[in-house]
Amino acid sequence: MNVKPFTDLARLCVHTITTRPLDIENAVEKYASLGVRGITVWREVFKTDKPRQVYKIIRRSGLETVSLCRGGFFPSVDKDERERAIADNLSALEEASELEAPLLVLVCGSDPLQSPKTSRNQIREGIEAILPSAGRLGVKLAIEPLHPVYADIRSAINTMKQANDMAGYFNSPWLGVAVDVYHVWWDEALQREIVRCGDNNNLFAFHICDWKVPTGDILFDRGLMGEGCIDLRQIRCWMEEAGFKGFCEVEIFSEIYWKTDQDEFLNKIIRTYLDFA
Amino acid sequence: MNVKPFTDLARLCVHTITTRPLDIENAVEKYASLGVRGITVWREVFKTDKPRQVYKIIRRSGLETVSLCRGGFFPSVDKDERERAIADNLSALEEASELEAPLLVLVCGSDPLQSPKTSRNQIREGIEAILPSAGRLGVKLAIEPLHPVYADIRSAINTMKQANDMAGYFNSPWLGVAVDVYHVWWDEALQREIVRCGDNNNLFAFHICDWKVPTGDILFDRGLMGEGCIDLRQIRCWMEEAGFKGFCEVEIFSEIYWKTDQDEFLNKIIRTYLDFA
Repeated sequence: MNVKPFTDLARLCVHTITTRPLDIENAVEKYASLGVRGITVWREVFKTDKPRQVYKIIRRSGLETVSLCRGGFFPSVDKDERERAIADNLSALEEASELEAPLLVLVCGSDPLQSPKTSRNQIREGIEAILPSAGRLGVKLAIEPLHPVYADIRSAINTMKQANDMAGYFNSPWLGVAVDVYHVWWDEALQREIVRCGDNNNLFAFHICDWKVPTGDILFDRGLMGEGCIDLRQIRCWMEEAGFKGFCEVEIFSEIYWKTDQDEFLNKIIRTYLDFA
Repeated sequence: MNVKPFTDLARLCVHTITTRPLDIENAVEKYASLGVRGITVWREVFKTDKPRQVYKIIRRSGLETVSLCRGGFFPSVDKDERERAIADNLSALEEASELEAPLLVLVCGSDPLQSPKTSRNQIREGIEAILPSAGRLGVKLAIEPLHPVYADIRSAINTMKQANDMAGYFNSPWLGVAVDVYHVWWDEALQREIVRCGDNNNLFAFHICDWKVPTGDILFDRGLMGEGCIDLRQIRCWMEEAGFKGFCEVEIFSEIYWKTDQDEFLNKIIRTYLDFA
């Protein structure tokens, strides 16, 4: 493996969802004071603060905005729902633009009342509908393949291969892939598909955390780096060999960590980032 | 789709784990009296009844023994553990032989302390060690690919493609694949890999249930046929088009159903088998 541990935090980004109990002002202040360099904003912060306000808060802090999470959820058996989803994604692109976030991450969606294939067709139609706006606003889109355990309602795109295929179909500089180790670590084809993704200049984002053994809750029990079974450094190595130079974004949904002191949690994030990422 | 609903129970098999609260005598009596035709025995019944006793109980009832569940769990970072696993699989083959079960299903295992690839190598070594005994005893082995949510500790073989690749490596009449809809329904390559499996005469078993939306517990909340999002009849159609003529084996792990009256549960199994399988 040709990759060495990080010796500084230059490529560390934290998702606001990771420290969910903190409001945006607090999150930004804590990240910046600890030396975190990037932030990915979850749309739920817009419930209390408008995108332009959040932009100003982040700007003052010196943090770099890495992406906005999340758009997607295109499929539905109901045509009106699909149109609402497209409208919501257009709103998300506007928000990303106001936030001056260069990237909108897509959790593509799935409707259990129809086949995964039909859901994928509707994902393609959804992306087709919003891609021109992405280009016009200068906001890239990243398809995040989700672990097959979420194939029922969260995404019918469950492997890097499927994400690459979808990105390849559009072949647009505005559409690429977000690689989250939690979703793809198990996949035998992972290295090959990361290489393919890099060859197409589509490695847009890299999300990190760990898969705990055992996992208590399939949605809200993600682990800190090193706490589970994912060979994170190996995957980072593959990413970098494939040309990725962006941030390592810590995205941890955890009812356990959300209940703990968020300063301590952030310190753990930094320590485990240096030890395992 | 070229497949019609079943009009009788000629191809219905039930796994003893499905009606876990029942002892083997009770299970066999109830299955037989309701018209179920096949039974797959889980090894835990041997805690109270020896294989030859269980054979006699089943024989008297007229049920057909479809398979023994389960062997496997080959990988470990510990060499002694791997040897113990092989010895245990040889015992399972002996049990299957005494039971006159034609098939032993393999849940292949995975050790989170090493890479999935290393675990797969150890699975290959394990199968290699037991395959001669399988042939000698006349008991086939079926690799069951497990859903990627179980990739950490239950199996490093998580797709039909991987199961087909492993079976193809050995190319033995004694080694094939068990297709469980719960594990493979999400996979874009499913139909193609079922065809490939059939072309190699490796479709050894077909397990049915459903993926509930939402799923409360990832291990013990399987649904009755029709209760979730799996297009079971479509998958059965692909199985049959690929040449499969065996039983549809109902394998439901459910803390919910295990707490209910098992006669009622069995009646529901029969009704949903006729409606959805």
